Amino acid sequence: MPHIAYVDGAYLPLAQAAVHIEDRGFQFADGVYEVIAVRSGRLIDEAPHLARLARSLGELRIRPPRGEAALKIVLRETTRRNRIERGSVYVQVTRGTAPRDHAFPASPEPTLVVTARRARPPDPRFVEEGVAVVTAADIRWRRCDIKSVSLLPNVLGKQEAREAGAFEAWQVDAAGRVTEGTSSNAWIVAADGAIVTHPANHAILNGVTRLALIDIIRREGCRLDERAFTIAEVKAAREAFLTSTTADVLPVVRIDGVPVANGHPGLLTQKLRAAYLAHVAAGDA
Amino acid sequence: MPHIAYVDGAYLPLAQAAVHIEDRGFQFADGVYEVIAVRSGRLIDEAPHLARLARSLGELRIRPPRGEAALKIVLRETTRRNRIERGSVYVQVTRGTAPRDHAFPASPEPTLVVTARRARPPDPRFVEEGVAVVTAADIRWRRCDIKSVSLLPNVLGKQEAREAGAFEAWQVDAAGRVTEGTSSNAWIVAADGAIVTHPANHAILNGVTRLALIDIIRREGCRLDERAFTIAEVKAAREAFLTSTTADVLPVVRIDGVPVANGHPGLLTQKLRAAYLAHVAAGDA
Repeated sequence: MPHIAYVDGAYLPLAQAAVHIEDRGFQFADGVYEVIAVRSGRLIDEAPHLARLARSLGELRIRPPRGEAALKIVLRETTRRNRIERGSVYVQVTRGTAPRDHAFPASPEPTLVVTARRARPPDPRFVEEGVAVVTAADIRWRRCDIKSVSLLPNVLGKQEAREAGAFEAWQVDAAGRVTEGTSSNAWIVAADGAIVTHPANHAILNGVTRLALIDIIRREGCRLDERAFTIAEVKAAREAFLTSTTADVLPVVRIDGVPVANGHPGLLTQKLRAAYLAHVAAGDA
Repeated sequence: MPHIAYVDGAYLPLAQAAVHIEDRGFQFADGVYEVIAVRSGRLIDEAPHLARLARSLGELRIRPPRGEAALKIVLRETTRRNRIERGSVYVQVTRGTAPRDHAFPASPEPTLVVTARRARPPDPRFVEEGVAVVTAADIRWRRCDIKSVSLLPNVLGKQEAREAGAFEAWQVDAAGRVTEGTSSNAWIVAADGAIVTHPANHAILNGVTRLALIDIIRREGCRLDERAFTIAEVKAAREAFLTSTTADVLPVVRIDGVPVANGHPGLLTQKLRAAYLAHVAAGDA
């Protein structure tokens, strides 16, 4: 497999792909990113990913480094040069390179980095048996709706999960409510049968898979309740699952070592997962 | 002036100094830093800066890339090669380069970057007339005691200040209390005469200038009160000031457009500033 990265106009061997040490992404986490799934060589849900990228850039007042059409070409070309059939393409934009100073530089030239890599489907056992999550305090900043590279708390939460033998950490706010995972959205099927997930406010990243699943839920006529839920509710839930670009829809069967319901993937979760995979296969994007 | 940077063992022209695009500092803000003042070619308060660097690395479980003696040599050599008489040296350590994955890589090789640059003393008008601050919501994560490069909220706060024509933004928590500036600590001389600054808990970065000033305050027999204070208290204060490695001690004379006391630098602030500059001149570190 070739390893080619795009950095500011050039396609380079990944090993040589670099940014300046005074890039504001490196010194200030002053940048944003997207991860887009590639299936059968096609970018899945590209439009909502690019819309979210534009929104993140807008919130931080970072000038888009390319027009959308040009960016799409770079995404495709990076995918093609790396011969990705199944995997993901990663795009990162930072405010650019400037002598270190917190405030925005006068006329920065934003940095654009694109990489692509292959990925296998999730471990079949994750799908068949479900995954475990642990809970961790949500210590992040108050603008989690911006998909910034300011990911250090997510790194620490994911590491906690890894060390606990869990797939993900569900972050819990000061009021004891689950916001989301460190790199995925969190869902339950509540005792009353409603599908519940945190509303898309400043406390969570509005996942593209989350949005696609909400469309599916509405189309299927299931009851959706966009509200915060507690750990106690997870433990009393009929089902639980998580969504992300790379994990699709995965059943959650344990939280902090306690089984959710009977400890097996729920039927509604499996149905939603199948519907989501059909959406992906149709390349609906 | 030469522009030489140190990156992972090599001294390079600054223009060529780069890190890999999969450096975790660039992709995850997974790194820490220090800024050390240089006066008369000497590093000021180097020991507490290196102690804090070690603490930040320890909290994030990033392996120190060099022993302290070796790091000190790099700091000096970078300062010398850039012929810095007055300025600062910047050191950044990240968890290293690895294929993108939130959790810690198995055996990362940490990245070490050191730069140095000249700086003029603060604008004399800032000292003589004082500076203005604005208030901004403290939207940062809950581990501000770690001097991480996860600085995006600080960037946004500093930019707010800049656009309001202010020197700094004082960040205010949900309870209406001032935590600290975006790159400085916040202080008042309260109506009762006590010198007040936020305690060094997870809500603030325990500034090295802050610590030096606390020593001075104790030595001078002034009353120190390490507690959070409100914006209303600032407005009713006798004096206000800020401290940082690059700003030393600067009088704050306006907050959100309202004069603090009579709108002129306070006498105690000037006395503390003089004592701090004497500490620096003595190279007490």
